[in-house]
Formats: sequence, structure tokens, C-alpha cells
Amino acid sequence: MTTSREIRLKSRPVGLPQASNFELATVDLPAPGPDEVQVRNLWMSVDPYMRGRMYDRPSYVPPFQLGQALQGGAVGEVVASNDPDFKPGDIVSSMFGWREYYNASPKALAAGGLGAITKLDTHGIPPQAFLGVVGMPGLTAYVGLLRIAALKDGDVVFVSAAAGAVGSVVCQIAKLKGHTVIGSAGGPEKVAFLKSIGVDHVIDYKATPDVVAELAKVAPKGIDVYFENVGGVHLEAAINSARPFARFALCGMISQYNETGKPEGPPNIIQAVGKSLRLEGFIVSNHVDMFPQFAKDMAEWIKAGKITWKETVEEGVERAPDAFVKLFTGENLGKMLVKLA
Amino acid sequence: MTTSREIRLKSRPVGLPQASNFELATVDLPAPGPDEVQVRNLWMSVDPYMRGRMYDRPSYVPPFQLGQALQGGAVGEVVASNDPDFKPGDIVSSMFGWREYYNASPKALAAGGLGAITKLDTHGIPPQAFLGVVGMPGLTAYVGLLRIAALKDGDVVFVSAAAGAVGSVVCQIAKLKGHTVIGSAGGPEKVAFLKSIGVDHVIDYKATPDVVAELAKVAPKGIDVYFENVGGVHLEAAINSARPFARFALCGMISQYNETGKPEGPPNIIQAVGKSLRLEGFIVSNHVDMFPQFAKDMAEWIKAGKITWKETVEEGVERAPDAFVKLFTGENLGKMLVKLA
Repeated sequence: MTTSREIRLKSRPVGLPQASNFELATVDLPAPGPDEVQVRNLWMSVDPYMRGRMYDRPSYVPPFQLGQALQGGAVGEVVASNDPDFKPGDIVSSMFGWREYYNASPKALAAGGLGAITKLDTHGIPPQAFLGVVGMPGLTAYVGLLRIAALKDGDVVFVSAAAGAVGSVVCQIAKLKGHTVIGSAGGPEKVAFLKSIGVDHVIDYKATPDVVAELAKVAPKGIDVYFENVGGVHLEAAINSARPFARFALCGMISQYNETGKPEGPPNIIQAVGKSLRLEGFIVSNHVDMFPQFAKDMAEWIKAGKITWKETVEEGVERAPDAFVKLFTGENLGKMLVKLA
Repeated sequence: MTTSREIRLKSRPVGLPQASNFELATVDLPAPGPDEVQVRNLWMSVDPYMRGRMYDRPSYVPPFQLGQALQGGAVGEVVASNDPDFKPGDIVSSMFGWREYYNASPKALAAGGLGAITKLDTHGIPPQAFLGVVGMPGLTAYVGLLRIAALKDGDVVFVSAAAGAVGSVVCQIAKLKGHTVIGSAGGPEKVAFLKSIGVDHVIDYKATPDVVAELAKVAPKGIDVYFENVGGVHLEAAINSARPFARFALCGMISQYNETGKPEGPPNIIQAVGKSLRLEGFIVSNHVDMFPQFAKDMAEWIKAGKITWKETVEEGVERAPDAFVKLFTGENLGKMLVKLA
């Protein structure tokens, strides 16, 4: 019998999530059953998209259930195994985050795409990077920039939440391919990081009274690609500065996830007609076919020193709700992680 | 010497154009010069996009100049010719609308794509239809539905301004290809017309307090394609009812063309992320490569009785400003035309 602590959704947040929306529970985990492995999580991920699952509404992933442990990306170590393909010491990724230990059958989950338990060959890369730059956020950047926005030679690229887990990879892929990149982020530490990875122009949106005017100033000839993570005035700025035939990869709109009133839509959306803009939303789980090419490219880029990353780490499963909330107050630089062991 | 009356832009409209923004002028036209033809216009077109050219701002077409005759689609008859390829009696289309006569060199304009003087082989189709169903508005419908929205089997199609020159062609192409079509238009006459051409559900937006709720009601399983002519609450409704991977062809947003304040953007644009929507603007002049296939298809459809059309006609060049303004008050059923001779 193993004792495991987990975070459950106690009540559905209204607006910015509060500590009271979560509860810490302790469960006794039996030994793994037939075909099951028991995994001790080392790291778990908190991601902005999880906020959507806290609403009780139909979406591309089902809502989290009250009174049950939350779910999300995690990397752990197998401690016991009844599956011949897994042995103690193996490092695996799963969607069983928000808890210290779990039992699960890799075979039963194998058909599940991103929900599978996957053995990681880390090649010297720290395991938690498989929750970031070489994992789902990295793939999201890759898919959005190369498939959805269809990056092509000469494009000027604008990225919002540019210092985040996804945005910072978008910036670096665009830079290593030779593009002019404009990134928006909040605060001097993020600005310095973005400059250190070669971003050409950084907009500190917290220090900028008018993001629309600022983007027009730093991109006087306009932008061709916008990687959208934020929404609101950032989307308005991108539309305003878009050149004809610009492509927008709509990955997220974090400024709106906790909105309780009626959000403001982009008032200049009409420009999408005259400038023949393409705005396209995407969910990374619909593009896992790109994973093998992504994994190959990313391994090469990291080896060549062309991609780097930052982590913001909280320790202990009990800190996971705080880590999650900090995503929305912008307190993370790079990937926000919770270290569990 | 020929006397010709023309409509000039006297002042740039603020909000809905007024009679005072236009002036009627009479000019003496000399005989056509070398390589020139002289054309007597029979019909001219007024189109919503012309409102954009009345602003003094950069756009995909240059702004109209104050004190000069406006421009736009027209169909006329050659009355004199110094070009061996044209003879008196030929019916030609041009962009020399808003005037009764003009002189121009077809050779000099030949490279100009949609700006060219084109001899029409009308095959018994009334010449003014080349300003509508078999002309630019028809091509706009064809391009937007088949290329931009990439219509495919089983799609449920929603069309705003469905009884207009473009919208009514969109509805009919979608119907002849076997789709469920929902059209929005204002007033009982337009509703009756749309039902007569087989539109499955018609929303009379003027009689509907909540277009968003009404679309959700008539399309309980959602929509896959939205042909956008209106903007505002129609765009919000389409986003709200969109199924995953729905495609929006953004052709125009007539509700916003006369906006003097800050227009409201779609407050639910965030749904474009979770539902992987694609919103794409287009300008028909970038898609003239589809014209030959369009002309062939449309001729067959008309011959087979699968496409019909309505016209709203004002008579005399002096009525052209009124005809134009009526586009924005929704007084046209089908194509709005001015008969000049």
C-alpha cells in the first residue's frame, strides 16, 4: 500500500481560480493490478488550457469532475510493474498529473494518443523537459508555426506570451529559420530572456500604454504571422499590423480564460476581409502526426544549442494550485512546473 | 462631341453616405482617340465594397478621389471604335461605371484583370447579369464557397445577407450541391425569395430579437461553413454555432461599413481556438484564375434552371447615389443595379 496525495477540484472557479476551488486529499494506493504499472510522479505540468476544463460545458476535452483528482501532463518513474514492457526505473510520461502516485495499465491506454503512458528515452535531456520544450508545449509551437501559420521565407512573426512555454519555442524556431521575430511579454525579466534568445523586438505589454501602436512602431512594414496566445488587445494589434495574406495561428487567449463578463472581441476584425487574413484555431492533439518530425528536429536543435528554455518550479503537489494560478498572473518565465519528487 | 453625365465624389461620407456627398456633373466627351473605343453604358453596378473606397486610407484598392467620377462595374454598348477588335454594337463590361459614356483604350487596359474592357458573349443572358450572377458577385460567391470555405460533402452552410447579389448565389450553389442551407435576411419579401430558391431555414434578422439563439435553434447540430457578408451579431452567431473545423469565408461586413465609433468585435472569438475554426478573408480580384471554371459552371447551372436571380433597379445615372445608399439600408432584393440607357 502506497500513500499518495492528490489535488481535487472542489468547486468550479468563477473568474481567477482561488485556493478554495481546490482540495488536497490523501489516498491509499493498492499494489498495481494485472497489466498495471505503479508510477511515482517526478514532475507535473500546469497549463493554461486546464482552465477550460474547469468549466462544466462541452469542449474538445471533457470537463474536470468535482471531487476527483485533476488531470494533466506528468513525468514519473515506474516503481512496480505487471507489464513486461515496463520495468522499475523506467521514466514515463502520462496525463496522470496532479497526484504523487498512480496505477494504470499502459496497454489499456495505448490507443489513447496523448493520453498514453509513454516510456521516455531522455537522451540526457532532463525529464521535465518532456512536459515543455520537447513535449506538448513544444509540439504546440511547432504545429502552430509550421502547419497552421504555414511559416514561409521572409515572414515577419509576432508572438504573444512570448516568454511562456509555447511562445518561447515559437520565437526560437522562427529565429533559427532566419525570421524577424517580435515578442510580447510582461516585465523586465521576460524581456531580458527574450532578448537573450535573439528576439528582434520585445514589447513589454505591462509597460506599454498602447500595444496596438507599439506593434505598428516596431513592425513598420507589418507582420505576416501571428502566434496568438493572449487575445484581447494583442489580437487587435496583430490584425492592425497584419500584411495582406497574413496567417494567424490561434493557440490560446489566456487574457480571456477567467473572464466573467462579455469579453471584447477584436474591433478591427473587418480588416480580415480587405487584407485577406486567415485566422485559424488549433488543438495540438489533432496534430500528433507531426510528433515524430518534431521530436527529430527538436533533438537536433537542442543538441546544436539553437533552442534553450526556462522553467519556473514550485515544489510539492500541495503547491500545484498556486502554480496553476500563477499562469494567469504571468508569474512564470518559461514552463511552469511542479516538482513532486 | 457627346454629352455625358457622371457622378463624382464631392465629400467623403461620415457614417451612412448622404446625397450631399455626391454631385452630378455633365462633361463633353470628344470622339475616341487612337486605339480607343467610345462606350455608352447600359447598366452600372453599385456594390457595398465601394463604401471602403470612399475613405481616404490605404487598402487593396486605392481610394476614390474627390471631384472625380466614381468607378465600378458597368456594361455598355460600343458606339464608336478605333480598335479593330471592337465594333459598334458590341456589348462590353468595364470598371467605368457611374457615368453615361466613356472613351478608353481596351489594349491599354488589357493587362488590368478585372479592370479590363471585355467583350461579352451574352448567349441570351441579359447583359446586366454580367454585373451580378455571371459577373463579379457570382464569382465572389463561387470563390468564397468553393475555395475559401472549401465546401465539402455534408457541410451545413450559413449565409448572411443571403438575399443579396452574392449571398443568393452562395445559397443556390450550396443547394444544388445538396447541402443544408440557412440564410439570414431582413424582411418578408427576402424571406419569401430565399424559400423560393430552396433555402432550408431562413432567419429574418429584423424580426429576430436574438440572432445567436435563432441560429442555434435552426441549426441544432451546428454549422460547418459560414459565408460572411454582414459582421456583428451574425459573426457572433456563426462562431457560436460552428462545429469543430468549420470554415468561414469572410467576404464582407456590411453592418460595419458606415460605423463611426469603435465597432464591436465578436465577443466569442475565443471559440475559434477550442473548435479549430478557420476564418479567412478574401478579395475576389485575387482569385480571377477561377473565372473560366466559374463561367462554365454558371452557364450550365443557369441553363438547367438551377440558378435564378433577382434585380432591384433604379433608372438614370442621377439615381446612382440613392441606389448605393439603399445597399446599406437593405432595400435591395438581389442585385442592385442602375439602368443608364
